[in-house]
Order: sequence, then structure tokens, then C-alpha cells
Amino acid sequence: MKDFTQNLEAAKAALSHLDLEEREAAITAASRDFFWYSPVLKPRLDHLRADFVVRPRNEAEVIEVLKTCYDYDIPVTTRGAGTGNYGQAMPMRGGCVMHLRHMNQVLSCTPGRVVAQPGCLLKDLDAHCKTHSGHELRMVSSTWVTATIGGFIAGGSGGVGSVTWGSLRDLGNILRLRVVTMEAAPRVLEFTGEALARVSHAYGTNGIITEVEMPTAPAYDWVDVLVKAKDFGVAMTLADDLANEDGILLKLASVFEAPTAKSFFKRVAPYVDEDDHLLALMVAPQGMDGFLTYLGRQEGAEMIYRSDAHSWARGPGLIFEYGWNHTTLRALKVDPSITYLQIRYGFPKHKALVEKMRAAFPKGEVIQHLEAIRAGGKVGFAGLSMVRFTTEARLEEIIRIHEDAGALIFNPHRYTLEEGGRQHTDDAQLNFKREADPKGLLNPGKMIAFDDPYWTYDTMYAYPDMRPPS
Amino acid sequence: MKDFTQNLEAAKAALSHLDLEEREAAITAASRDFFWYSPVLKPRLDHLRADFVVRPRNEAEVIEVLKTCYDYDIPVTTRGAGTGNYGQAMPMRGGCVMHLRHMNQVLSCTPGRVVAQPGCLLKDLDAHCKTHSGHELRMVSSTWVTATIGGFIAGGSGGVGSVTWGSLRDLGNILRLRVVTMEAAPRVLEFTGEALARVSHAYGTNGIITEVEMPTAPAYDWVDVLVKAKDFGVAMTLADDLANEDGILLKLASVFEAPTAKSFFKRVAPYVDEDDHLLALMVAPQGMDGFLTYLGRQEGAEMIYRSDAHSWARGPGLIFEYGWNHTTLRALKVDPSITYLQIRYGFPKHKALVEKMRAAFPKGEVIQHLEAIRAGGKVGFAGLSMVRFTTEARLEEIIRIHEDAGALIFNPHRYTLEEGGRQHTDDAQLNFKREADPKGLLNPGKMIAFDDPYWTYDTMYAYPDMRPPS
Repeated sequence: MKDFTQNLEAAKAALSHLDLEEREAAITAASRDFFWYSPVLKPRLDHLRADFVVRPRNEAEVIEVLKTCYDYDIPVTTRGAGTGNYGQAMPMRGGCVMHLRHMNQVLSCTPGRVVAQPGCLLKDLDAHCKTHSGHELRMVSSTWVTATIGGFIAGGSGGVGSVTWGSLRDLGNILRLRVVTMEAAPRVLEFTGEALARVSHAYGTNGIITEVEMPTAPAYDWVDVLVKAKDFGVAMTLADDLANEDGILLKLASVFEAPTAKSFFKRVAPYVDEDDHLLALMVAPQGMDGFLTYLGRQEGAEMIYRSDAHSWARGPGLIFEYGWNHTTLRALKVDPSITYLQIRYGFPKHKALVEKMRAAFPKGEVIQHLEAIRAGGKVGFAGLSMVRFTTEARLEEIIRIHEDAGALIFNPHRYTLEEGGRQHTDDAQLNFKREADPKGLLNPGKMIAFDDPYWTYDTMYAYPDMRPPS
Repeated sequence: MKDFTQNLEAAKAALSHLDLEEREAAITAASRDFFWYSPVLKPRLDHLRADFVVRPRNEAEVIEVLKTCYDYDIPVTTRGAGTGNYGQAMPMRGGCVMHLRHMNQVLSCTPGRVVAQPGCLLKDLDAHCKTHSGHELRMVSSTWVTATIGGFIAGGSGGVGSVTWGSLRDLGNILRLRVVTMEAAPRVLEFTGEALARVSHAYGTNGIITEVEMPTAPAYDWVDVLVKAKDFGVAMTLADDLANEDGILLKLASVFEAPTAKSFFKRVAPYVDEDDHLLALMVAPQGMDGFLTYLGRQEGAEMIYRSDAHSWARGPGLIFEYGWNHTTLRALKVDPSITYLQIRYGFPKHKALVEKMRAAFPKGEVIQHLEAIRAGGKVGFAGLSMVRFTTEARLEEIIRIHEDAGALIFNPHRYTLEEGGRQHTDDAQLNFKREADPKGLLNPGKMIAFDDPYWTYDTMYAYPDMRPPS
């Protein structure tokens, strides 16, 4: 990549009629995502800063930004709300951060389908769909209040709703993406079917999403439920069994090992003991009778909260804001030494594997947090285990112990697509990047295969602008 | 049971202000269901005939019928449309057939939930719900056009929609049943939760359902799809895989072994060969892109019809009217020697077990027909194999071969709850019958455990009024 510093002023001048941001504090804020969840990424990426931020108002302006930056060899890192926590929105080379917050319109919605611009907040998109179609997104991240649909598609993989609908990558969970390339003459492309895999979960490395079409599901008045259990196996089995009850529609089934609820969930703490494991559920109202029937058959589990009928002086708030990446966030606020891992415990050995990992570490070093999700039609667990961080070497060891046992790790302490994923080249993404971003300016440093096809993954990928930890 | 013949005139007189039917032809018509699917049941039950038919207009009239018949010791067999094919609505002892066709009102519906009277046709209920809530029943029988919701609950187990929602017996798939008992003073009871199992799929032997509350699901404009394949394994795997695609919402996935489509499906026949296996699907419109993407990856499968875009001179009609019990019905019309079996091929050995059964019989004797269904969260198959009937002994042998291989048989050549099910006493149903029907007048002869607790199932249960085949 060419040195572009001498081009910056000319590029900014060329884009000055757009919503261009040059204030230091605003640029700094727009140059950060939730990478600081990771004590590995924090020291390495904390210094990164874009040179300017631009906020296009429509696709024509996106094209103008991409064309101008192409001409001036300026890297472009695109972001929504920046709630990703793999560092995917960190501008490794500086340059331009393109913020899509202005492109927040819902273009159409019918029961089952919505078309929107990428900068629309998940929360706003759901509200619009619920009003106009009685539907909502099939799945959202726990950062629903602040995150955008474009960011979720480009940087996320699943979340609240995945217990029923699987992951974003599953066929049918994204319908169409409209994408602008970064070439001398940017092209606008429409992707469906097999082509969707080129740009979904590609961190904006090979094209910029300017319109999304997503499937939706009915927007029921989900009942938030909390159940406590003294036996972890009981809590885990409840989540697994309920997710396998075909007639009980769920949107969330999260399991939190003790003492998560007591130690980290302030509003829940008065209702649990230190040794209580917690199960959080979102149940469709018409599923509550079936759920309560099921629960009535279980020993050792007690419902302590349901959002439609409770006597808590102060309710816990949205229950999904205890799950997925919010669990670690809550823990971090109480204990800054905590970080986490993302793990896949695949069916049919998911429960046994979790129990094995529970037994593999000293008490308190790894705290289990599970999310029931569907994959290939079967319920398994996404693990977002909380880890008390000591050293990078120990973190690596904890990862290795999981992998040796057969638990797949998606390493959130890496900022590249490959290292955060399955450590192999995604040919669909790579080939499209070669075509759509010939100068390698889109979110540089995030796709190893483009930079260094012979990388062996022996050590952490060290992009030139990454700072070694002191 | 007492002889009631001398009481008939008095009972009819007492009920004469109701919609009472005494015409021979009408009584005969109301005394038959689809028992004639079975060459075993046909000669044994063909002679059965009620003494009169009454059609109550509301719950108060149901109570009046039950009280009057209780007083006069007259058996009451309750029916909806009589589309069941286990003989469940056949009046074994004559007496009164109570037809609920007048009780056909939808009482309320919201997205996710509907309350209705039992005599409402599935088709009308769905139309009402679609108009007023954008929803429809989660599952219906293939006799949707003519069958009632009450009959479906009292006599059915699942059907179109079970590929996503499982079976009626699964928690959450029935919300509430209002039931009238047959006592000196009939009681009106409301059942939810565990109590639902007492009267659902009980053939009206222990109480009469006067109101139902059911969960609903979005009423999408389902796309009917037909796919052909020369290799049976390809067709079966397509159905299984698609039902396991979490992002592709299906309402039906049926597999028909060759030459079913060519021989029995008249309007499909021009588009297939004798050796073509057929897959029938109902796909949510927003799932079509994912479905076509999946199909594009398969060798040896070709889509020949989609209802939203086709050039067939004459379309096939509703695709689900080729599946479930309609398959046998279509075959029977072409070849009267055909009957069928109902089989459960449970996950995870379902595909292997089907292949084993395919190999177990001479060509053409047993023709595979599979319906992908969920059970316990896993996709497996309901088999409704068509059988070329020769003798009862051979039919028994075919059943035994299935059972020996581990395939569960629900024998549709038996008219009792136990023999058509798992050959064991359902205590919830039995105990409630003892309480709700102390004289044993409700649909007599259908619950062996009530008549003869020591029955050993060595031979077919021969209720006194069953006629031995000549």
C-alpha cells in the first residue's frame, strides 16, 4: 500500500461538501470499536486513529468517497456503531473512517421481509417492522439498542434469535446485499444466493454494503424469564431441552454459571445466591403454558422472574442484554481482569464437552456462559466463557485445552478474519476482494490471505501498524 | 353397557327441539369416517350405523345431549367431518352420533393465538386468522378443506407444518381445551398444561371439546415446489437436509418413491418418468432464495414446479393435498388394492432405516412415502408407506418386519386408541374417562383399557359389535 499522507488534504478537500469530520475527539471516537474487551488487542490497537471521518448520506456519496479515496490511495474502514469486539472496525492504517449512520432508512417491509439501509439501528429497524408488518428481525446482537444492521451483517455471526434461526451465514438468513466496490470506477452489485458469502462477515474488506434485504419473523411480545438452579447440569439441560421443544417458541436461552448472576448482574443479585446458576429465556407468549408445564416437571429449578408478571421492585431490563456479548460487558464493569472466549460446542457432544471444560480449569478462572443455538438443524451451544486474564501465554493455553478437547474456538483476541474464524482462507471473500478492491484499501490488515497467502498462523498476525505490547 | 334400544324414542323426543337427523341416508353418511382406507377395518366396521344424529348449536346444547343420553344410557360418538382413517368416529354401538358442524365460530384471534369452536373447518379457521391476524394454524391435516379443528385435535397427531412445529402432543401446540363431561350433571372443564393430554387424541372417549385455543404461526404465501430425482437417496436427503436448514422456513417436505408421481399423481404425471422420485415442499417466500441456492449445489435433482412461477397448463393444485394421508387416497383411486402403514423413523437412524425397509420387500409391495417431521427438536420421518394388500397375515408380517428393524408402527388397521398407538394404557386418558364418563357411553369400544384392563394385544381387539370378516 502506498504512503498516502501527502494526499490527505487533497482528498479531504475533494470530499469537503460531504459530512466530513475533522475534530480530534470525534475522529478518535470513530476510530474505536469494542476491541478493548480483549487484553491482547487493547495494547496493540489502542493507538490507532483515522485521519478523517466521513458520513455519506446516500449511496451516491458512498461511491464518491470510495472513488476519491481510491484515486488518492487512502484506506477506508467502514463502520456502523462500532460495537464489534474483534477489532473489526479498527482503522489499522489510519486514513478514512466511513461512518454509515446517516444511511438509516427502512425502504420497505412486509411480513417476512425488510429492505433497509445499512446504518439503520437494529432497534429502529425492529420498531419500524413491528409497526408496519407485525414482524421483526430473526436475529439481532445483544447490542440491539446501539448497533446497526450493516455492522451486524458485516461483522456479526448471530445472536438473540439464533436459538431458533441459526446463524447469519445459514442459507435464507440474509436475502440480498447491495454492494459498492472500491475501483477506479466503483460498481454497484446486487448479491443473492451463493454470492452473499462474499461480503457477509467480511468486515467491509471487499465492498461496502449500501442496502440489505433481510428475512423477518413475527414480533411477539416476548416474555423475559429467569430461572435459577443449584446444579449447573440442570440449568444447562433446561436450556438444551427447551430449545428442542418444537412447540415452544424461544428467542433466547442463555446459561450463566455461578457466581455470574450474583457477582455481575446487579439487579438480579438480590434474588440469587452465590451458588445459583441462572437461565435466561425469551419465550413467545403463546409458549408460556408449554414452558411452565415443562418447568413443572423439573426438579431443582425455580423461576424467579417473568416480565409479564413479577413483583421485583426494579425489573432487570431487557433480558437479552444479559446474554451474548453483554455478559462479558457486565462482568468487565465489576472485574476488569475478565475477558472471554468464543467457543462452539457442537451437537451431539455439546453438554459433555461443556462439563469437561468446567472440570479443566481452577475454580473461577473460566466461568461458563452458554447460548443455545441451532446449527444444521440441531441445538448446540455457543460458549462465551468468561476468563480471568493473567497472561497471554495462559490465555493461549486455555484456548489450546479447549481445542484439544474438540471445542471449536473463534478467537476474539485476534483482529483478522482468519484468526477470529477457522484459520483458513475464505476463497469467496478473497477472490472478490481481488476484484472489488484491487489496491487493497478496504479495511486493510483484516484479511491475511490478501496480504500474505503463505501465512502459517504460528503467531499472531502482525500487520505493520499493529503495535507490539510493551 | 346397558341395552338402550327401548330408550331411543324417548331420548329422541327429549332432543327433538334440537337439530336432530333421522333420515336413513343422512344417518348412514354421519356414521362413517375414512375407515375404509383399511381393508382390515372395512369388512369389520362397514355395517355400523348410529340410531340418530344430533347437531348441537352451542355448548348448552352439547350439555343437553350428553345429559339426556346419559339418562337414557345411549352411547354418543362425536365427530367433526369424519376424515379420520383409524375408524375413530365409527359408532361401534350405534346410538347417537353428535355432529359439531354448527359449532364453527372463531371466537377471537391475535397474532400467535386463536380461540374457536370445535366444528370450525381448518380451512375457514385459517382464512379467518389470516385476515384478522396475519397468522394461521401451525399444523393442519391434508384434509384441511373438509376437516374440523376439533376433529384434528381429538383424532389427529400432526401433519402439514409438523416439519417445523412437531406434533400436536408436543408442549405448546395446544393451548387450552374446554371440555364437557358425560355425567348425571355434566361439568364444563378448562384444561391447559399437563391436563391437555387427557382429552387430546382421545377420540372423544372421555369428554367433548366445546372450545379450543391454539397457537398460530405466520400465514406466509407459501410457495409450493416439486423436485424430481432419479435416486431415492437424493430425494430423501434433500427433504432431510432442507428440514435441517434453520434459515429456510418450510411447512411441508414430502418424499414419494417412484412410481408414485407417475402412477398416482395425474396432473404431475406428464412431468415425470416412471422412475422419478418426487419431493414436494412448501417454502416460505423469503426462503426461496436459500432453497434455490441449496438446490443449486445438488446433483441429480431438478425442480419441475414452483407455484409462484410455472408454465404448467394445469397446475397441480394445493401441494399438501399430495402429502400425508392424501397420498394413499390418490393411490387408492387408481389402484384399490393399495392400503398403507404409519411408521415413525426416528432420528438419527431415520434414513438408514428407510433404506433398510426399501430393501426388505418385493418390488412394488411397499412404496415409500415419507414426511419430514420434527420430534424432540430433531428432524426424522413419518412414513406413510403405501402397501399393496394381499392378506391380513401378510400385512401383519410387513408390520412385524418394520418393528423388528426398529421402526415404530402406528397401526391404521385398528380402531382402538391403544392398538393405533403404542399398545399401552394411557393413564391420563383412562383415569379421566373413569371420572368423566362413568357409564362408558362416550365413543364406546375405542379405549381397551377402560373395557378390559387385562387385554394382552395378542389379537385384534374384538369389541362385541365389531363384525368378523366373512
